[in-house]
Amino acid sequence: MLRSQTKLLDLGRRQLPGLWGCLTKANISKLTMVEVDDKSGIATLTLNRPPVNSCNLELLLELNENIKQIECNKSRGLILTSSNDKVFSSGLDLNELYKPDQERLKAFWTALHEMWLSLYQCSIPTAAAINGHAIAVGCVLSAACEYRVMLPGFSIGIHATKFGYVVPHFIMISYLSVLPRRLVERALLQGKLFSTEEALQVNLVDEVAHSKAEALCKCAEFIDSFKQTQPAARALTKRQFRAPDVQVLIDDPEGQLRESLDYINKPSFQEGLGEYLRNLKAKDKH
Amino acid sequence: MLRSQTKLLDLGRRQLPGLWGCLTKANISKLTMVEVDDKSGIATLTLNRPPVNSCNLELLLELNENIKQIECNKSRGLILTSSNDKVFSSGLDLNELYKPDQERLKAFWTALHEMWLSLYQCSIPTAAAINGHAIAVGCVLSAACEYRVMLPGFSIGIHATKFGYVVPHFIMISYLSVLPRRLVERALLQGKLFSTEEALQVNLVDEVAHSKAEALCKCAEFIDSFKQTQPAARALTKRQFRAPDVQVLIDDPEGQLRESLDYINKPSFQEGLGEYLRNLKAKDKH
Amino acid sequence: MLRSQTKLLDLGRRQLPGLWGCLTKANISKLTMVEVDDKSGIATLTLNRPPVNSCNLELLLELNENIKQIECNKSRGLILTSSNDKVFSSGLDLNELYKPDQERLKAFWTALHEMWLSLYQCSIPTAAAINGHAIAVGCVLSAACEYRVMLPGFSIGIHATKFGYVVPHFIMISYLSVLPRRLVERALLQGKLFSTEEALQVNLVDEVAHSKAEALCKCAEFIDSFKQTQPAARALTKRQFRAPDVQVLIDDPEGQLRESLDYINKPSFQEGLGEYLRNLKAKDKH
Repeated sequence: MLRSQTKLLDLGRRQLPGLWGCLTKANISKLTMVEVDDKSGIATLTLNRPPVNSCNLELLLELNENIKQIECNKSRGLILTSSNDKVFSSGLDLNELYKPDQERLKAFWTALHEMWLSLYQCSIPTAAAINGHAIAVGCVLSAACEYRVMLPGFSIGIHATKFGYVVPHFIMISYLSVLPRRLVERALLQGKLFSTEEALQVNLVDEVAHSKAEALCKCAEFIDSFKQTQPAARALTKRQFRAPDVQVLIDDPEGQLRESLDYINKPSFQEGLGEYLRNLKAKDKH
Repeated sequence: MLRSQTKLLDLGRRQLPGLWGCLTKANISKLTMVEVDDKSGIATLTLNRPPVNSCNLELLLELNENIKQIECNKSRGLILTSSNDKVFSSGLDLNELYKPDQERLKAFWTALHEMWLSLYQCSIPTAAAINGHAIAVGCVLSAACEYRVMLPGFSIGIHATKFGYVVPHFIMISYLSVLPRRLVERALLQGKLFSTEEALQVNLVDEVAHSKAEALCKCAEFIDSFKQTQPAARALTKRQFRAPDVQVLIDDPEGQLRESLDYINKPSFQEGLGEYLRNLKAKDKH
Repeated sequence: MLRSQTKLLDLGRRQLPGLWGCLTKANISKLTMVEVDDKSGIATLTLNRPPVNSCNLELLLELNENIKQIECNKSRGLILTSSNDKVFSSGLDLNELYKPDQERLKAFWTALHEMWLSLYQCSIPTAAAINGHAIAVGCVLSAACEYRVMLPGFSIGIHATKFGYVVPHFIMISYLSVLPRRLVERALLQGKLFSTEEALQVNLVDEVAHSKAEALCKCAEFIDSFKQTQPAARALTKRQFRAPDVQVLIDDPEGQLRESLDYINKPSFQEGLGEYLRNLKAKDKH
């Protein structure tokens, strides 16, 4: 349905601002795809960075840019999904965090903040068609949307404590906006990954669909539930309702950035991350 | 039961303070009724402004006055209900908002703030017997009580986004005090009206009753659940528990007032409201 | 299982700091017991003040000291339980509140604050095996843990409004960290004691066990659920997540203390408490 009449917005190929001069053009191409259904007015934003949609600097910049563009283009809604039928997103690209170039790390984390703010405060209705595992920032992306439809057989959650990471304030907020406090604390501390069925039971996702097409359809139905509302009033209500959640990040972006970078640069975190990455590579070889 | 032995408090007929000199005596009579059951000590406050209990300035002033009076009179509890068997309250009287006299608009909105504070912080147990539709401020009145019993076949909710209105902070708070955050956001953004059954399912109402008498009875039972508590400790606990919710309105009443009035006076809002009212009148003719 | 290999930490017998010079050695012995399972690394902290584990100054000091000691000793988790098979804890020792020596009252309430902070912010996983009634501060102790397993046939809750007490901020927070806001307000105002079954239904407890051994086992299983997490990241995540809850008490301990002491010293509260205590004694005689 969503694909009947689409125009491909090649946002991925545009030249990014000079600040990111270190990036080559090749890096920034086609990490995402945007399709707008002319009939419904709904934009589908597809994560498309093989193999597992891990978020590196380039993907974050594209996401941020695309979300803003879709918002400006007066789309009626935004659906976030993945081109990979196993993984919605595996979270941050850990290579951005391991022995990082400090300038790039700063740009990376700033882009993460900005992308999250864009999605969390997006004025149009947003929904995630979670057609694969949604791990860590993959879960955060889903939680930042207003509605979630997930396919069975996958996992969703924030497992940061399992590799020694302490999630920043905005990630706690993201979970808290969806789950009751008691469950958020336990899930964060356990680094819990919910199965689709568990996620549905605690309302971390709103519906289960049995194919990507069905998931997209259910997301579109959710977006249609706003048909009789006035878009400007809806947008302002959402912004005001979510305002307390983003206040820390908006009031003190530098402080929040410094806190995260300090944590990432700690020798103990770097050591743990190094071992984690070595284990991953060893697994890949076998 | 509640009506067995009652004395009618003719608060509606009292002279209101000089500030409201523009009001005629006729306007301010019998918009509400108060009955106190001598045996149970429970006061029933009945909304009585035909045709649909829409809240104009006079009704708000009476409600505020009555709530305070009932509280002072050492009633054991307050039950809010309607004399209309179809509509609990349709919300604000939109005529107060359309092309308003600025002085009256200011008095109107101030009265709304004060009435809500009186009800939300009322020291005695409060319950709503929702014997008809409870729309917008009708829902807010119900949510400000400690307990809600609703008759089947009606609707309850805040549909502000449907006519282009952005609800102020205290109305968001009102919803948040009853529903989980995830549902509040969705309901506010969709302008959702819950059926009695839906409202029961999400705990927006606590019980369903099949007649007004049964609803009043269940409300009285709830008030009886405080029989073994010390009223002063109960009152102070309620006040302290709800204190964070009213802080914005108490700390900055002028700011909150200005924000609401500015929004109401916006040409875009006035135009939308005008069209909405013309459509209503057209419907009435047919 | 937990008792297979244990060493008894005789924390109860140590000399407490000079500040509490008024306490005799006899007073401070064996009010609690600590057993550490060498195999699992889990510490079990047992309330042991007959007849009903009511919290007096000495018990609070011991609890605080034990919690800190267990945390420092790198135990893998802490289970709180009772040596009494009918009462987990009856709450505060009301004799500490009635016609109090002001110095001792101040020490008592300060110890309550500090014990709560120690338990609520304890860096290792905490669980309560509630093998009897958990009333007032008995409920608060349970709620401060991360997990609760309760035996059937008992009551849990905060019944302060029933004897005229207004609970301070940290006790409201304790309830709010576990139950939805709507239920917290009602339970606090009604002074509700939940049966085990009711407590399970609203998630005030997480599981029901049919013996103390089974309860301890389920608590240990909960603690095991953190096996794959990094303890330092877990600890810091817990601390940051719970930080907003303790802020009032940490920012203004003197103010919170004064507010509580002022309330306790009120003639009206003292009179009510005196009557309550006389009734209790009269009951005991019959």
